[in-house]
Amino acid sequence: MIPQLSPTANPAIAARLDDAINNKTKPLGSLGALEALARQIGLIQNTTAISVVRPTILVFAADHGIVAEGVSAYPQEVTWQMVENFLAGGAAINVFAAQTGCALQIVDAGVNHDFGARAGLVDRKIAAGTANFARQPAMSKSTCAAALAAGMDLAAAVEGNVIGFGEMGIGNTTAAAALMHKLCAIPVAQCVGAGTGLSAAGIAHKQQVIEQAVALHAGVAAPLEVLATFGGLEIAMMVGAMLQAAAQRRVLLIDGFIVTSALLVAARLQPAILDYCVFSHSSAESGHQRMLAALGATPLLHLGLRLGEGTGCALAVPLLQAAVNFVAHMATFDSAKVSEKDG
Amino acid sequence: MIPQLSPTANPAIAARLDDAINNKTKPLGSLGALEALARQIGLIQNTTAISVVRPTILVFAADHGIVAEGVSAYPQEVTWQMVENFLAGGAAINVFAAQTGCALQIVDAGVNHDFGARAGLVDRKIAAGTANFARQPAMSKSTCAAALAAGMDLAAAVEGNVIGFGEMGIGNTTAAAALMHKLCAIPVAQCVGAGTGLSAAGIAHKQQVIEQAVALHAGVAAPLEVLATFGGLEIAMMVGAMLQAAAQRRVLLIDGFIVTSALLVAARLQPAILDYCVFSHSSAESGHQRMLAALGATPLLHLGLRLGEGTGCALAVPLLQAAVNFVAHMATFDSAKVSEKDG
Repeated sequence: MIPQLSPTANPAIAARLDDAINNKTKPLGSLGALEALARQIGLIQNTTAISVVRPTILVFAADHGIVAEGVSAYPQEVTWQMVENFLAGGAAINVFAAQTGCALQIVDAGVNHDFGARAGLVDRKIAAGTANFARQPAMSKSTCAAALAAGMDLAAAVEGNVIGFGEMGIGNTTAAAALMHKLCAIPVAQCVGAGTGLSAAGIAHKQQVIEQAVALHAGVAAPLEVLATFGGLEIAMMVGAMLQAAAQRRVLLIDGFIVTSALLVAARLQPAILDYCVFSHSSAESGHQRMLAALGATPLLHLGLRLGEGTGCALAVPLLQAAVNFVAHMATFDSAKVSEKDG
Repeated sequence: MIPQLSPTANPAIAARLDDAINNKTKPLGSLGALEALARQIGLIQNTTAISVVRPTILVFAADHGIVAEGVSAYPQEVTWQMVENFLAGGAAINVFAAQTGCALQIVDAGVNHDFGARAGLVDRKIAAGTANFARQPAMSKSTCAAALAAGMDLAAAVEGNVIGFGEMGIGNTTAAAALMHKLCAIPVAQCVGAGTGLSAAGIAHKQQVIEQAVALHAGVAAPLEVLATFGGLEIAMMVGAMLQAAAQRRVLLIDGFIVTSALLVAARLQPAILDYCVFSHSSAESGHQRMLAALGATPLLHLGLRLGEGTGCALAVPLLQAAVNFVAHMATFDSAKVSEKDG
């Protein structure tokens, strides 16, 4: 069921990419991270004619039983209210996706609310939220598998060659912190943060909730079991979508703390997925930088964002386009008759 | 002649900006640097109805007598050849400006080449390059004043409300490093870098050339005298353009090492200019981070760019637009009927 992923390494393509990039009219290496990005996209797409075609951001929304433990600064109803906001076009991700030319799909992965049939909402509701993982596993194995399969379906149907991942779910930084702790072996205290805006006391409580839950589920270790036990429906659906997107050699744009926690699961299942991932930004949510370090990831943007929704992905799309455009449109020293470096 | 600049601080506007930003459907402060950017633009434009209208990048090109000392990895002819490349649309700044919707003006501030009358080239040539500041001042006071005045003229004629600054000039990292040393009192060794690609031996030689020139011109201290002695025609023209742009309350987009060296001069003349400056990126050119720190500046992008031409400005424009767009287009908690934070 899990797609097998291959590394993107290809010496012949890599050499052609180096030639294409190094002959442009600029000092060698002077476009920094954009050059690395162009090389990565070229290896993913297996060509020097790299492109960003119809970048698409999938925003997965779901609710979390763990909110019963008082781990969020906002009430659970904000999840469905924000989905309504997405559908009405009023959220940050709507604004940024429209600006940067990204298609947007809003997916109900498991929101505790009946939206009815709604234009613009992709209904993949697996359940009305997860169970409270302070008391029992968040999902059964079959529920988790259903979420993974739905994510694969959704990614397979995307037309574009770049997929950004976003999420909405009150309580999901708690799930993400638990996943991080289990999958990275980093102490819980270094995994938890303020989420949407907890006080120091709130953060301490969140840490305690996670530590107790980890003790309750002490035997859990395999990635998919960790995901089912501590994850969320939107997180599981993202794991499936990421694996499928990479299998189709698309560029994966990774957002902040929660999206990266989904990638942690995917990368434990298929380490080669990291070759396909562009890390859009380093979040202000405490723990994200450690999570990125655990993945060996270098994020593009450092803007202190901590909003989720895929906002970092949308804001990074112009940098992907810049990487594509300099390769496609800059002159070479030869074509522009510019003298090369002395000596 | 130098415009008098006022700080942008305005408590009434600041309070209205805080309200507008904090009532959007997002956790408080969760858009990080974009929120600070929106506040800054609002204070510059004196309104909550902030805008980015026809962003324009001025690229100033000039030659430098100091290249006679062997301080650059590329021959001087590359300056005019790159101007030709700009006019033909093949340089990085052409590609990025086109992508991000920036108007582009290429200005001959003092290139050692006869372009003739050329469509698309703004002829403000003050001289065919500067003198070699290892032997004499780079510019006379009157030459420097002419460059400043031309810069003011050019900025005054720009239609847009955001002006980005870029440059091209073989040898100009040497001039910029000398300006940095004189104006920030930072040792020359910490001001020099590889420029377009010097070896370690080349950097050591560049440092020695600057140290000897600084000794030769030991009495020079006033900002305009420092500019005339060590600067370049493109740098002086940028100083004038920056001061005029701020006087007209435009947003100034600052690029890398050389552009920031021009700002150092402008800020010594009119410290309030910093209120108008958005620092587009932190360059990989050694010294730029220290220069930014000396100005108390927080750059938007950290991409390891070291290309100049205003490329960082063009790449930062989407972030300015994002700051404008979230203020203009996001729903409020009230309008979207989203519940606010508990407690």
